Amino acid sequence: MKAYIEPIGKLINQFTKLPGVGTKTAQRYAYKIINMPEDEVRAFAESLISAKTDVHYCKVCGNFTEGEVCDICKNRKTDVICVVKEPKDVSVMEKAGEFQGVYHVLHGTINPIEGIGPNDIRIKELLQRISTGEVKEVIMATNPDVEGEATAMYIAKLIKPFGIKVTRIAHGIAVGTDIEYADVGSLTRALIDRREI
Amino acid sequence: MKAYIEPIGKLINQFTKLPGVGTKTAQRYAYKIINMPEDEVRAFAESLISAKTDVHYCKVCGNFTEGEVCDICKNRKTDVICVVKEPKDVSVMEKAGEFQGVYHVLHGTINPIEGIGPNDIRIKELLQRISTGEVKEVIMATNPDVEGEATAMYIAKLIKPFGIKVTRIAHGIAVGTDIEYADVGSLTRALIDRREI
Repeated sequence: MKAYIEPIGKLINQFTKLPGVGTKTAQRYAYKIINMPEDEVRAFAESLISAKTDVHYCKVCGNFTEGEVCDICKNRKTDVICVVKEPKDVSVMEKAGEFQGVYHVLHGTINPIEGIGPNDIRIKELLQRISTGEVKEVIMATNPDVEGEATAMYIAKLIKPFGIKVTRIAHGIAVGTDIEYADVGSLTRALIDRREI
Repeated sequence: MKAYIEPIGKLINQFTKLPGVGTKTAQRYAYKIINMPEDEVRAFAESLISAKTDVHYCKVCGNFTEGEVCDICKNRKTDVICVVKEPKDVSVMEKAGEFQGVYHVLHGTINPIEGIGPNDIRIKELLQRISTGEVKEVIMATNPDVEGEATAMYIAKLIKPFGIKVTRIAHGIAVGTDIEYADVGSLTRALIDRREI
């Protein structure tokens, strides 16, 4: 006898597609769904489809948006552009709340091993944006890994001839971390990027 | 500026309804959905609704079924009934594959503190099933907690006058657990339920 009837087995299988979800967790999620009121389950299903069909990329910055242009591009001063790898990085920056400018989402980083070159990410679109002359500073906020660093350097070289300031977000010891527990990479960066006080 | 646009925020909120899912995990799930092909997301949404609308309770045993009577009740000998608390316990028993009889799902256990009495769970239906005279043994497989034990004892008392054997599944040290690491409760039960070799 199969352990599950088909509708349950199928749902468990769907849940295992989510990152980090194994069969046991998927099973718990499925039983939770079965015990939810039908209208709540329908709302859940509609949210899934809506997140897929109502979410587009902003034609200016490449961030998630419901319309053509995202709220950030519509409402903010455009003299400082923060360049990030993925749309979810914008959410993280917005939660921090420090940055008041606009973004540019690359949708990837240069990665020769995976065959991703400069033309495969949104670098051309960035150059078009800065060619208007309004932009005073471009902040490179790609990840502090090999690809992120290389992409930041590559873009910086392209932008400098426009006479625009290019900066890189600081990397070092995370706030709240004791030096005792800092990883070697962060500590090294913290020393290299040290500033006068 | 909000960190998420509405369709993404809504989906994150839906995912947090799943057991053990916080905002960060829900966010990872939501981004995964956005990056899935649209037909896969639609299949996921349909699975959710199907698990809710196509899954019913077997009118004989109370287990999950797509029809009126579940496959287990249809195809198995009915002389041994295994009594469990919830439909998901049936899945677990079926995965073990040892038991070849039929089930009876109580849909709860007696719990005076939460106001659940004997009439609130499917005890009456169990008595109806055994009154046919076919049943030779009832195995009580409720959980080894206070409510599970009390419910097993309560049902055993009701069934014994019918002249039917009532048994309780064994509890003790889990297979694969060293005695060194066994919990006190399991070790106590293992001693009480010791058998001659």
